[in-house]
Amino acid sequence: MEPMHIDPKRLVDRLAALAALSPLEGEGSCRVALTDADKAGRDLFVSWLEALGLEVRIDVIGNIVGVWSALALDPTAAPVMMGSHLDTVRTGGRYDGAYGVVAGLEVIETLAANGVQTARPLAVAAFTNEEGARYAPDMMGSLVYVGGLDLWSALETVGIDGTTVAGELARIGYVGPAACPGPVPHAFVELHIEQGPVLEHEDYPIGAVTGVQGISWQELTIVGQSNHAGTTPMYLRHDPGYAAARIAAFVRELALEIAGQVGTVGRMVFEPNLVNVVPASVTMTVDVRNTDEDLLQQAEKRLAEFVAEIAASEGLEITTRSLARFEPVAFDEAIIGIVEMVAWNQGLPPLRMPSGAGHDAQMLARVCPTGMIFVPSHKGLSHNPAEYTASADLEAGANVLLEVVMGLANT
Amino acid sequence: MEPMHIDPKRLVDRLAALAALSPLEGEGSCRVALTDADKAGRDLFVSWLEALGLEVRIDVIGNIVGVWSALALDPTAAPVMMGSHLDTVRTGGRYDGAYGVVAGLEVIETLAANGVQTARPLAVAAFTNEEGARYAPDMMGSLVYVGGLDLWSALETVGIDGTTVAGELARIGYVGPAACPGPVPHAFVELHIEQGPVLEHEDYPIGAVTGVQGISWQELTIVGQSNHAGTTPMYLRHDPGYAAARIAAFVRELALEIAGQVGTVGRMVFEPNLVNVVPASVTMTVDVRNTDEDLLQQAEKRLAEFVAEIAASEGLEITTRSLARFEPVAFDEAIIGIVEMVAWNQGLPPLRMPSGAGHDAQMLARVCPTGMIFVPSHKGLSHNPAEYTASADLEAGANVLLEVVMGLANT
Repeated sequence: MEPMHIDPKRLVDRLAALAALSPLEGEGSCRVALTDADKAGRDLFVSWLEALGLEVRIDVIGNIVGVWSALALDPTAAPVMMGSHLDTVRTGGRYDGAYGVVAGLEVIETLAANGVQTARPLAVAAFTNEEGARYAPDMMGSLVYVGGLDLWSALETVGIDGTTVAGELARIGYVGPAACPGPVPHAFVELHIEQGPVLEHEDYPIGAVTGVQGISWQELTIVGQSNHAGTTPMYLRHDPGYAAARIAAFVRELALEIAGQVGTVGRMVFEPNLVNVVPASVTMTVDVRNTDEDLLQQAEKRLAEFVAEIAASEGLEITTRSLARFEPVAFDEAIIGIVEMVAWNQGLPPLRMPSGAGHDAQMLARVCPTGMIFVPSHKGLSHNPAEYTASADLEAGANVLLEVVMGLANT
Repeated sequence: MEPMHIDPKRLVDRLAALAALSPLEGEGSCRVALTDADKAGRDLFVSWLEALGLEVRIDVIGNIVGVWSALALDPTAAPVMMGSHLDTVRTGGRYDGAYGVVAGLEVIETLAANGVQTARPLAVAAFTNEEGARYAPDMMGSLVYVGGLDLWSALETVGIDGTTVAGELARIGYVGPAACPGPVPHAFVELHIEQGPVLEHEDYPIGAVTGVQGISWQELTIVGQSNHAGTTPMYLRHDPGYAAARIAAFVRELALEIAGQVGTVGRMVFEPNLVNVVPASVTMTVDVRNTDEDLLQQAEKRLAEFVAEIAASEGLEITTRSLARFEPVAFDEAIIGIVEMVAWNQGLPPLRMPSGAGHDAQMLARVCPTGMIFVPSHKGLSHNPAEYTASADLEAGANVLLEVVMGLANT
């Protein structure tokens, strides 16, 4: 039998149609959660689900799930779920999230068109507010779906514009009748752009995602003594800027010494920030990530020791506040293996890699075997209208998803 | 003969009277150059000069010089000049500048009251706009006085509030008839608070100032590649924040390795300054100072080498812009020696030390033998309403000035 293929033109056209509802310059799109633009995107997605004859389930947090059981041998079995999210950041591209949703729909449409029977039903989900650009936390819809966040806490969330999730969900007409937590899928597979440069740089078309890095965000406030840069000898200084510099350099050392570690100092604020004044205080952030919880804790511990040492040696007061802390998520080994096998079979060398960003899949991983498939992001750009993945890569990723899901739906 | 002493109460009362004209909380005063408050301070100073019967010379840039030749053996000889400035920064104290002016007046009043004859006349000057808080450059009045800045350029200077020096000088009535450059003094001695912590920390009541540090201010703009902190592996980063941190740490190393060197990174701005984004660019300043021009150049050279190395190794574009560059000024060895001798004679151990800040004396040093005397600043604070020097230290400094000037006026 000739192998099945998804329809690459339909896939790309649907991404373009979604982007065209609320376009930004270039290929970008702005579809912030629960805005009118988000409603337009949801309406279009639902119209596609309905046109294909899928059962559309909208739940109380606005997650949209299309279920295809027409050809399932056991229509009542837990489905294999695909999907991602339709919301974007304010300066979004057209691929982040939307690709996984549209590709899930494409897989079902391809199977239906070919009259393929599977043991279990298939489903495609678009989860509410994955980005967290308007309402915190991010990955809200999938977190509520798996019971990780209380529904009422989520609905009462006040956004950066003073609106509530409940109010905006009702306003755009997406408070559905389905309950949360939702039905547990047999398995979940999310196809997503990498949002990083590794696949392109290493020349792999497919990433077999092993899990999501654990994240530790800390804010350090370093208080010293503001002094005149000319009249204060070095030995009488308590310079928080010097300590901040040493800590930022140490974060790099940690990242190079600990396996699988990344570390970033992205934010640094000097006060009073004048050329000829030793700063009075510096506020800085440290972002360290690792796929291994023990190594992440080791990084945190070594950072804390270094901070204590430099506070003592420079005569500074340093306080540390945790801004965020998530443990690493490991995806299902069997699904990772299936993704690799399918990719090899299709002549697409896969790279086993962790995800450096958060995804709905990490929430689904709490309740069912879960995996992710990555395709390359040009220059690693994302959350940017210049976000781009070549059509050939989009097609390849969807064909891998097709075969992975067919396999899972027959187990 | 019983040694003469200045009147400490009159000295302190006059500083209080000046501060009371435009007081800030605590002991502070705001007398920004050529404002109404500056006019009030000038008027009070001129009234003291006139009450003492001094010849008052106001020149075309508003410098005020009181000349006392009544008891001089040669009234036409070049005078020994004392003085400093009356203007303050916006959040000024009552000692910076005003102390040297009031103490100069106090020396003349003490000599007059005691009927002391000197070979040469004495003079006390209050130079216009030393602080540069409203009009750049700082030390404007003394620079014009010695011919280092063209009069018309100075008069046309537009301030941060859009006013001109000429306009404001005329408005407050301080465009005088005396010409600039002004008559060259026989010698110049400026008594000033240290504005740094060294004398207090080392427990010396008097600083015999050897010169003014050379200053090199540079602004570095480091451009890299903004990237996602989670999805970008360390080996694919071009992180300007890391380079900025390494450069700031290197500035400290330089300061510890090169004799008499201080170095400060006071300003650092990350863009976009977000916890989970590798910065796109960092702008930072480097302030290095040394009393030795060769060593200052060595510091600049080593910094430039380090910057070039890290730009290459991290794949960054770093541009450097000079914000200010002044060569060190060395004061007259004979006057430094006289200050030390007088201080020892009065039971006040002197510390030979450079000035880390700029002063009118460095301009006068271009045309005549010049020296400075420092007294301690509590906690090194200056340009701050909390600026404070104990009355006993103010008295001691003025008595040293008295004897130093008597010696110089008889040579």
